[in-house]
Amino acid sequence: MARIVMKFGGTSMAGIERIRRVAQIVKQQADAGHEVAVVVSAMAGDTDRLVNFCREASSLYDAAEYDVVVASGEQVTSGLLAIALQSLGAKARSWLGWQMPIRTIEAHSKARIEAIDADALTASMKSGEIAIIPGFQGISQDGRITTLGRGGSDTSAVAIAAAVKADRCDIYTDVDGVYTTDPRIVTKARKLKTVTFEEMLELASVGAKVLQTRSVGLAMKENVRIQVLSSFTEDGAPSADDLPGTMIVSESEMEKEDMERQLITGIAHDKNESKITLTRVPDKPGAVANIFEPLAKAAINVDMIIQNVGREKGETDVTFTAPTSDLDRTMQVLEKAQESIGYNRLISDTNVAKISVVGVGMKSHAGVASTMFKSLADRGVNIQAITTSEIKVSVLIEEDYTELALRVLHTAYGLDAEDAA
Amino acid sequence: MARIVMKFGGTSMAGIERIRRVAQIVKQQADAGHEVAVVVSAMAGDTDRLVNFCREASSLYDAAEYDVVVASGEQVTSGLLAIALQSLGAKARSWLGWQMPIRTIEAHSKARIEAIDADALTASMKSGEIAIIPGFQGISQDGRITTLGRGGSDTSAVAIAAAVKADRCDIYTDVDGVYTTDPRIVTKARKLKTVTFEEMLELASVGAKVLQTRSVGLAMKENVRIQVLSSFTEDGAPSADDLPGTMIVSESEMEKEDMERQLITGIAHDKNESKITLTRVPDKPGAVANIFEPLAKAAINVDMIIQNVGREKGETDVTFTAPTSDLDRTMQVLEKAQESIGYNRLISDTNVAKISVVGVGMKSHAGVASTMFKSLADRGVNIQAITTSEIKVSVLIEEDYTELALRVLHTAYGLDAEDAA
Repeated sequence: MARIVMKFGGTSMAGIERIRRVAQIVKQQADAGHEVAVVVSAMAGDTDRLVNFCREASSLYDAAEYDVVVASGEQVTSGLLAIALQSLGAKARSWLGWQMPIRTIEAHSKARIEAIDADALTASMKSGEIAIIPGFQGISQDGRITTLGRGGSDTSAVAIAAAVKADRCDIYTDVDGVYTTDPRIVTKARKLKTVTFEEMLELASVGAKVLQTRSVGLAMKENVRIQVLSSFTEDGAPSADDLPGTMIVSESEMEKEDMERQLITGIAHDKNESKITLTRVPDKPGAVANIFEPLAKAAINVDMIIQNVGREKGETDVTFTAPTSDLDRTMQVLEKAQESIGYNRLISDTNVAKISVVGVGMKSHAGVASTMFKSLADRGVNIQAITTSEIKVSVLIEEDYTELALRVLHTAYGLDAEDAA
Repeated sequence: MARIVMKFGGTSMAGIERIRRVAQIVKQQADAGHEVAVVVSAMAGDTDRLVNFCREASSLYDAAEYDVVVASGEQVTSGLLAIALQSLGAKARSWLGWQMPIRTIEAHSKARIEAIDADALTASMKSGEIAIIPGFQGISQDGRITTLGRGGSDTSAVAIAAAVKADRCDIYTDVDGVYTTDPRIVTKARKLKTVTFEEMLELASVGAKVLQTRSVGLAMKENVRIQVLSSFTEDGAPSADDLPGTMIVSESEMEKEDMERQLITGIAHDKNESKITLTRVPDKPGAVANIFEPLAKAAINVDMIIQNVGREKGETDVTFTAPTSDLDRTMQVLEKAQESIGYNRLISDTNVAKISVVGVGMKSHAGVASTMFKSLADRGVNIQAITTSEIKVSVLIEEDYTELALRVLHTAYGLDAEDAA
């Protein structure tokens, strides 16, 4: 018998038929004797509908009132799932954010959870009642509804799991787990049995969009074991004991569970970065700071940075990457700062992709980066920039080579599934 | 300067364009220096959508979870109206039922308001902030969302008006006031300047569906002056000083305001009653009780009752009316009770209408009923049953004569508008 938090996203809650299906999956866990809390998203599309209402009402909408409006979507699905569970004969009730309460900071529309008073919730779960909790929302110190930002329901689920000391937080989504790489591109991609929090953070932040990054960070901090699995299996609901998804766990647990682990866990790609180059920047102390200080003030998230030796003495070329969604703002900031920086030309390039190999195994193994460089060079893929962390090596390449690079690296690191060879 | 509660129904809140229009009407009152609270319904159709979700999820839905789901409709419009008001430069915020709080009994989906803690609300209104309150909802003693039943927003508005000691409760609706009779039938119908609570209760209960009956009863108890007016005037929003609608006030205020008042205030009709006759019931003590006791147990609302002398000695015919929606159940109850009642035949007739003349003036004037009977007889309208109260005379007639009867009586009591003569 375990205590489990289950989280279902908007696609799983889209309409009464799917909510009934979710109720069956939840009831199966309760029937197995587990104590169950469920965190739900709004019906797919409903949050967009509500956000658009706010935008139509005023382009400068009040974030506190926006929260009142958009939080209603999860309120609806919470009540409906409780009704659907009751109709299957289960005991269930909804717990709205202000009822528990889930206390957050006052930053409306992008709040962070500060504390959850889970005493009543835990007592209710112990009594055999299934608790249904709307994701994405809480209550501020002054008693008003707050929301956690888009995708915040994953974070709600992990926070609830930490608060009730759950054995596991099951995130049901429209993929059935975390893969070694994007299976739509690499047919030999394998579903991972386990992945560490650190690996998942690196994979999530470079474009493997299975979980909200924030929720993984919180799970790592609170040591909440997450399982990613699909609510859309063909052969009925997955049972608690099948554990058919991917477990996201701490590194120490991983070592115990998976001795035969690969050097590299997964390969991610990200096409949403652009490359910006400033030519003939003065090669003197403070010159680089003149570039990145105004960008930091504009809250532009700079990623890879490379400084080349310039053609002329006393000059250098500086290249960096930033999200393509921020490219226009980045260019404006740098154009304004041309005089203080003193560069010659400003060049942007959206035709790039970042490829990252991730794995805790590389901590104790040399040669991961050189395998990457050599494999790509052998196939004529030019590397434009490189960054590394303890468990990750990323390279920037021309976007057109993305799929080729993923396939080459997947094979090079021995990740290819045997049965799909 | 006054303190005003304004209430807008679902048609007025149906979509952002209309919500913007409501914001303009509200801001006009605030700009005139008044302290303003606004009670809103959900967008027209939205409550039906949410109710249907609950019904689809389970025919035997839990009323507590139903309340969680359906209360979200008013939460959405409250936030949106606050945003729309802010975009016009007004200070505004939403106050959800649990925030104030509005305390109700625990009867989910049909709760009654017990107490409103309006201290924070009043302080906010005094500071010049417009308060937006979702109608139809409150919070139970155990901290769960309750709703007041369909149409409950009128009641919410009156309760808020009583709690903040408002000078007036303006109910904006899709008609522009209370008329002497249905203007779609009688072109000479006049809009009333004032009507008493008692008259409005009688008019509402016999089919003049402008306000929810409960809200009028509450207004009478708490002495809240109600104004009914339209949010859809062609020439811009009605101003506070025009008072273009109908005021619903106490009898003592009415006497001060309207010395030249007519004997009869209005004439209502109701086609939703059916006539049931039991023939040859034994004419002995307890016989009538045998008929109406089982109906009372089945919660069937019997209205007019007539007992005729039977053709045979020791026998009598009993006729009564009941809502047509309850007719099937009424017949079943009586068929089961045939033996204990001892009647001969059971006859039902849905082809009847109830016509009621209403007016506090008749308290001090004789001859109101005889005018009614004579006017109808002169035009060949047969009266099948009669009931009277202190301020009302109702007759049951054949349904086909409804429009004729309304026109005849409207003229007979001197209610016809002069300019439409």
